[in-house]
Amino acid sequence: MNAQDKHSPKPVSVTTGPIGRSRKLYASPAGFPEVRVPYREIAFEPSSGEPPLRIYDSSGPYGCAEFTPDLAAGLPAARPWLAAREGLENYQGRTVKPEDNGFASGEYLVPPCPAPRAIYRGTGAGPVTQLEFARAGIVTQEMVYVAHRENLCRERAFENAAARIADGESFGASIPQFVTSEFVRDEVARGRAIIPANINHPELEPVIIGRNFLVKINANIGNSAVTSSVAEEVEKMVWSIRWGADTVMDLSTGRNIHNIRDWIIRNASAPIGTVPIYQALEKVGGDATKLDWEVFKDTLIEQAEQGVDYFTIHAGVRLAHVPLTANRVTGIVSRGGSIMARWCLSRHRESFLYERFGDICDIMRRYDVSFSLGDGLRPGSNADANDAAQFAELETLGELTKVAWDKGCQVMIEGPGHVPMHKIKANMDKQLAVCGEAPFYTLGPLVTDIAPGYDHITSGIGAAMIGWFGTAMLCYVTPKEHLGLPDRDDVKTGVITYRIAAHAADLAKGHPAAIERDNAMSRARFDFRWTDQFDIGLDPDTARKYHDETMPKEAHKVAHFCSMCGPKFCSMQITRDLREEAAAIAEREQGMADKSAEFLEKGAEIYVEAGE
Amino acid sequence: MNAQDKHSPKPVSVTTGPIGRSRKLYASPAGFPEVRVPYREIAFEPSSGEPPLRIYDSSGPYGCAEFTPDLAAGLPAARPWLAAREGLENYQGRTVKPEDNGFASGEYLVPPCPAPRAIYRGTGAGPVTQLEFARAGIVTQEMVYVAHRENLCRERAFENAAARIADGESFGASIPQFVTSEFVRDEVARGRAIIPANINHPELEPVIIGRNFLVKINANIGNSAVTSSVAEEVEKMVWSIRWGADTVMDLSTGRNIHNIRDWIIRNASAPIGTVPIYQALEKVGGDATKLDWEVFKDTLIEQAEQGVDYFTIHAGVRLAHVPLTANRVTGIVSRGGSIMARWCLSRHRESFLYERFGDICDIMRRYDVSFSLGDGLRPGSNADANDAAQFAELETLGELTKVAWDKGCQVMIEGPGHVPMHKIKANMDKQLAVCGEAPFYTLGPLVTDIAPGYDHITSGIGAAMIGWFGTAMLCYVTPKEHLGLPDRDDVKTGVITYRIAAHAADLAKGHPAAIERDNAMSRARFDFRWTDQFDIGLDPDTARKYHDETMPKEAHKVAHFCSMCGPKFCSMQITRDLREEAAAIAEREQGMADKSAEFLEKGAEIYVEAGE
Repeated sequence: MNAQDKHSPKPVSVTTGPIGRSRKLYASPAGFPEVRVPYREIAFEPSSGEPPLRIYDSSGPYGCAEFTPDLAAGLPAARPWLAAREGLENYQGRTVKPEDNGFASGEYLVPPCPAPRAIYRGTGAGPVTQLEFARAGIVTQEMVYVAHRENLCRERAFENAAARIADGESFGASIPQFVTSEFVRDEVARGRAIIPANINHPELEPVIIGRNFLVKINANIGNSAVTSSVAEEVEKMVWSIRWGADTVMDLSTGRNIHNIRDWIIRNASAPIGTVPIYQALEKVGGDATKLDWEVFKDTLIEQAEQGVDYFTIHAGVRLAHVPLTANRVTGIVSRGGSIMARWCLSRHRESFLYERFGDICDIMRRYDVSFSLGDGLRPGSNADANDAAQFAELETLGELTKVAWDKGCQVMIEGPGHVPMHKIKANMDKQLAVCGEAPFYTLGPLVTDIAPGYDHITSGIGAAMIGWFGTAMLCYVTPKEHLGLPDRDDVKTGVITYRIAAHAADLAKGHPAAIERDNAMSRARFDFRWTDQFDIGLDPDTARKYHDETMPKEAHKVAHFCSMCGPKFCSMQITRDLREEAAAIAEREQGMADKSAEFLEKGAEIYVEAGE
Repeated sequence: MNAQDKHSPKPVSVTTGPIGRSRKLYASPAGFPEVRVPYREIAFEPSSGEPPLRIYDSSGPYGCAEFTPDLAAGLPAARPWLAAREGLENYQGRTVKPEDNGFASGEYLVPPCPAPRAIYRGTGAGPVTQLEFARAGIVTQEMVYVAHRENLCRERAFENAAARIADGESFGASIPQFVTSEFVRDEVARGRAIIPANINHPELEPVIIGRNFLVKINANIGNSAVTSSVAEEVEKMVWSIRWGADTVMDLSTGRNIHNIRDWIIRNASAPIGTVPIYQALEKVGGDATKLDWEVFKDTLIEQAEQGVDYFTIHAGVRLAHVPLTANRVTGIVSRGGSIMARWCLSRHRESFLYERFGDICDIMRRYDVSFSLGDGLRPGSNADANDAAQFAELETLGELTKVAWDKGCQVMIEGPGHVPMHKIKANMDKQLAVCGEAPFYTLGPLVTDIAPGYDHITSGIGAAMIGWFGTAMLCYVTPKEHLGLPDRDDVKTGVITYRIAAHAADLAKGHPAAIERDNAMSRARFDFRWTDQFDIGLDPDTARKYHDETMPKEAHKVAHFCSMCGPKFCSMQITRDLREEAAAIAEREQGMADKSAEFLEKGAEIYVEAGE
């Protein structure tokens, strides 16, 4: 069901149903029946003789043919084990305050999501975060879950290990042939990967973010100026994960953000990230100079109790860094960065986020909210890439990473931004060096500034490259970047573009399972299995639509040619004929070679004596 | 004027007029009044205090506000000097045969373009090709033309030489700070660059293609199944160059191709390329096995007399290479490659293109048609990239390059195709090594096969990278690749995507003039000059449209914020405030430093004696 068509621009529910002709299924690792890992399975035309292809699936229950969402009830728990986990306590939780929703009231107040739930926090007695469990040598259900999830098709790839492993350049990553739960535990314990999974977000289907796993992508959503329905806000998240967003950041501002966030999280199968300083700023009337630790702390707890899985914290914007931006072409372009720069300068004192970083860790640890250490000084133009301000902040982020790790918190690091191609790798290398291999999470980067309207492409180029070099998650950019708010089509275009970038990176890194899908596509192309080609692709609907524009008849779906060359010039068909001819020639030549060998074997004499 | 709107899907004329608010102008190098080099000039809002930005312009006379095309008369000569060039003879030319137009007749025959013209060929007495002139130490008007054309803004860049030259990684290219005619001559003489410019195409505005010049892009066009008007066919070319195609390949097949090609070339300011084997195949009824030297030779002369500037010749597909494709996932995917493979296998003999290569050179030299040595065995999938068949052909192309050079012909080399990121550079390195630095001209490459409907993006990623590594021209791919025939919007999307890739490559190579346009954009962003941002971009119409969707009011074009952050959160505005504050702080600190220096200077004594 498509929740939004021409006659109903404002969805009353959300988009559900399978993608193309694929089928959603769940599989459980041996011994873990409660761990139900989602996949999409693409079946091929019987003529292919190929088994179905199982692919990674981020769409949540919404991708099921039989799922009927009830937004008020929220999703069923994908992590039922949390309720029984030791070291967590159920408590009353913070009371929602009028400023949490921007003082919206009466008819302007979006009602809270009625989905019933208990609020948890760590007792302090034992491990709470995935990092703490990992260090303690404990494999959590989340680790089992992501290990299985990352392994799609790897069993087959493993059989072909020698051929596959050689084909890639991973720049020092250590991608295993097969992902075990123990490998996941070890990567999390080292801080090289994170599983953003707030204990108050049981609806979450766990995702691992790290250089030695499949490259992930994030989509940003935000509330509309006029919110007509909560379904509309939830649909933005559902639509993003449908097309392949692994995590979703809610960058909403203004009124009702607490309650809308509630609706989103209760219905989110993907990790949700936020930038708490945005809400804190709303609470002080939008005046950055009025921010303080108390309002920020209260906002952290508010959002942690709701179940936000990762927070962008711009603690690397230090007072001393701000003057480094003075001669930039585009100054500071991160919202959070500029808020903190203004705060620092107006008081001429060190950032309270930096000074209170240990306290922030203590709060986030209790809920296992992961850090996304924000790059508030990222470049806003190619001219400002890799400058002193950017790298000074990155070094601070490295310092803070170690503090957060010591406190037991999971950490990833945000990166640029706008960077020409020849300066991209230096970003990755420096991040690895100064942040102890904590996962890198970059925005693009855009490799040129001259194409407003096409910045999904300018940034997709940089994203593919930095993903190859080792970035663990790529934050999408839509065609509307720098110009306006993305609509539904823009979000889809952004997500698909970034799925391309992430997959291209997986291929180039030599990920053992990545090329399976490409090969399935190539075989379908060579066999002229058109509907299989549509289904294997990232966007079956668009592929089918484009094909129909030139060749609308159903008979053309089995045509042994396409509209580019037509039947007479079809190179693929010619090749098929050639292959048969070439095989015949090879056989003939082998025959000659055999004759020749026999000839030599018999002494290379021209005449063989009679009787032999 | 837009030639195609909703009420008139079939253009009766072609699209003309300026792009955005830019102005087309012509400039002449000192001492060469007949050499009129086109530029587009973008003027900024007076508040900027910036001089206009001059950019490369490929749109031909169509980009002029005052130009009224007369397709039947053709374009005025952009190279009037050709008529007076020594070593050329005017002759009758070949008579058009019924098979040239696929035996179309009566109402089905498109009439020939009536534009009057003389047909020339080299006499053999002296140099004809740009390569021959260059080797003889003669600087042609074409060389003067492209030197000026490549220099936009370089005068300014030159002043900043030290800063600019360091910022880039050119992988061994030798991009000069300033392009002189002598530099062009030297590059052409070495075979490192070509100026495709048939002596029978006086309408041509010369373009240089080489690793040490701006990266160029090509757009492919082809006739429709039912041709309703010649204007429609010419419009495809005009539309492509309007958005930035540097050259256009006419890949038409079927009826009327001779006459349609005539209309296109007589109205083409850009170099036109073709694949003559396509037309030769039409002439033998589509049966590759019936091709022979005579029909091919006749087709070469036919097209050379019309003024085609470069021919794709698949002479590298040798008999011995064909069996190397037998175990590929997608066999042979080049049309020309599969035609020649079929020819070779059906007769079990060596390719006549290979055996007659010297004769082909002799014909092409007489008209200065450049070679585009076709990669008939390019991979059709990531799985087949960089395999034995592909590289065996590339080595043959290297061998043929030397033959063509010896014959005085200009040469570029076609390249893949479908290549994962980690295998792209090997293509460039091998091409440079085996083809003596002849310019590389690649199709994409596509870095993954899983995104039909988005192959402009999968290929744009690879194109940007291989352009950075040294490819001189990038052949575009549209969103319809693998699915159907591109429409007008697809062509535009493909061209813009490839302009992004080419420009990103120029930036990364450290081209001294490239970053000027990015910086102009970044300054306009920082100043909130919205209309300037639209105009500086590759596609002003789309950028303005996207901005209008969220902020339609004209007042918003001067708003000091955008729809993403709104007025309260605007990071750029905050930065502007910060900059003032930071400057004040710096001044204060400088004041302290001055005091400190003064203190030390005076002996660092706490108390200074009275009277001093």
